[in-house]
Amino acid sequence: MPTGSDSRALYERVADSLRTSIERGELAPGDTVPPEQELAESHGVSRQTVRQALQQLTNEGLLSSGRGRGRTVRSQARLRWRLSHFESQGNHTADADAWANEVQDQGHLPLQEVSVGLEIPPKAVAERLNLDPEKDIVVVRRRLRYVDDVPFQVADSYFPEDLARGTALMQPKNVSVPGGLLASIGRAQTRMVDEIQIRMPTKDESSRLGLPAGTPVAEHMRTGYDADGLPVRVMVTIAPGDRHTLVYELDAS
Amino acid sequence: MPTGSDSRALYERVADSLRTSIERGELAPGDTVPPEQELAESHGVSRQTVRQALQQLTNEGLLSSGRGRGRTVRSQARLRWRLSHFESQGNHTADADAWANEVQDQGHLPLQEVSVGLEIPPKAVAERLNLDPEKDIVVVRRRLRYVDDVPFQVADSYFPEDLARGTALMQPKNVSVPGGLLASIGRAQTRMVDEIQIRMPTKDESSRLGLPAGTPVAEHMRTGYDADGLPVRVMVTIAPGDRHTLVYELDAS
Repeated sequence: MPTGSDSRALYERVADSLRTSIERGELAPGDTVPPEQELAESHGVSRQTVRQALQQLTNEGLLSSGRGRGRTVRSQARLRWRLSHFESQGNHTADADAWANEVQDQGHLPLQEVSVGLEIPPKAVAERLNLDPEKDIVVVRRRLRYVDDVPFQVADSYFPEDLARGTALMQPKNVSVPGGLLASIGRAQTRMVDEIQIRMPTKDESSRLGLPAGTPVAEHMRTGYDADGLPVRVMVTIAPGDRHTLVYELDAS
Repeated sequence: MPTGSDSRALYERVADSLRTSIERGELAPGDTVPPEQELAESHGVSRQTVRQALQQLTNEGLLSSGRGRGRTVRSQARLRWRLSHFESQGNHTADADAWANEVQDQGHLPLQEVSVGLEIPPKAVAERLNLDPEKDIVVVRRRLRYVDDVPFQVADSYFPEDLARGTALMQPKNVSVPGGLLASIGRAQTRMVDEIQIRMPTKDESSRLGLPAGTPVAEHMRTGYDADGLPVRVMVTIAPGDRHTLVYELDAS
């Protein structure tokens, strides 16, 4: 029970109480939150205060925004995205690329929309590919990826234009080649550097991926190098936090 | 300019305009946002609408909450946390542990507060250490880590009690040993599995780490295995997104 020395705002006390119920599993994923009126009565506060508490928990990603219907507790079921393995050569097969195999292995249905463009490289991409953004251009393969028909991640791969020119990398559709597209043109990635930033989505990312309020993303940038140590690709993936667990398996040395 | 067919709320249009200025660098990190009255006039909206727009951008982590003062554009400078390297044996030295060396290498000042406890293992930890949460206990080394005197991350390491008993792992202070504490007791980690979840912080994490609104975290869980393939440690780190870039360097195979 709130005491006189409790400096938290009223709505914070209500939010804390509901959060505890969720953490303990008393309110489970999919459950509908009790009606505002009921919560107002049980906590001895106004409906306006209850609404503030529910908005707070929605911003934290714990509740759906529930327009029209009641708010529900969000599921935190995540697919494991095994980043140290998923682009290994054995994971590229003739009938599916590395990502599709990764999703299928976990019992889900992958789908990718692919488009190809020629662009001036963004600054971060130019730096990593040793390109001059004033005169070099890149081929970008943009993919919107779905799992079980739900938008899942956005993954854009950038290649130096002189590397991609006239190759299968220019095909504006999903292409599956044993060993992967880069291997098929003799430029397989042998070393990769992954850089991960954790942030809130941009408005455009939110709408493309259908992100509920309070859903942060990982911006995952992978730079691939060939056997000669030359950078051959930068892949930028926007991975919503509510749909992914990023997994790395490492040998200590 | 807003048109009749623009279905966005007024405050969203103002937020979009400011967001674009930030993305283009017209408003740079540290800059103070123009006063509410000025923004209201230049956008032809009420101050209340401007306030809503500023709150939206604060929730996205782009602006400081700026109580009392004006709101400023937040800096996104991040330390590189090289997860494939930072626990390599060479990074543990006699005068500093792996994390301190990692921070010092980047020209910053590390500080760690360490406490040690004996606990019933949380479910996720028990699973990974092959322990029975009904009867086994764990030794936990809790660290609150500062960089340049600012709270930076929370990192808790869990060890099976029978492994830690009577060893340096029980010392309630920061301990630096060449090769690391586990190596010093003959149980060096030779393989590690990292699992990363991206989420909003809990209230407790927010207050311990002094997180501004709209700052998501990475919950990084590393399970370490010794040369016999037995799990020897689970480390759970809460890494705020505004302070970290997670980095992995990988050999493709």
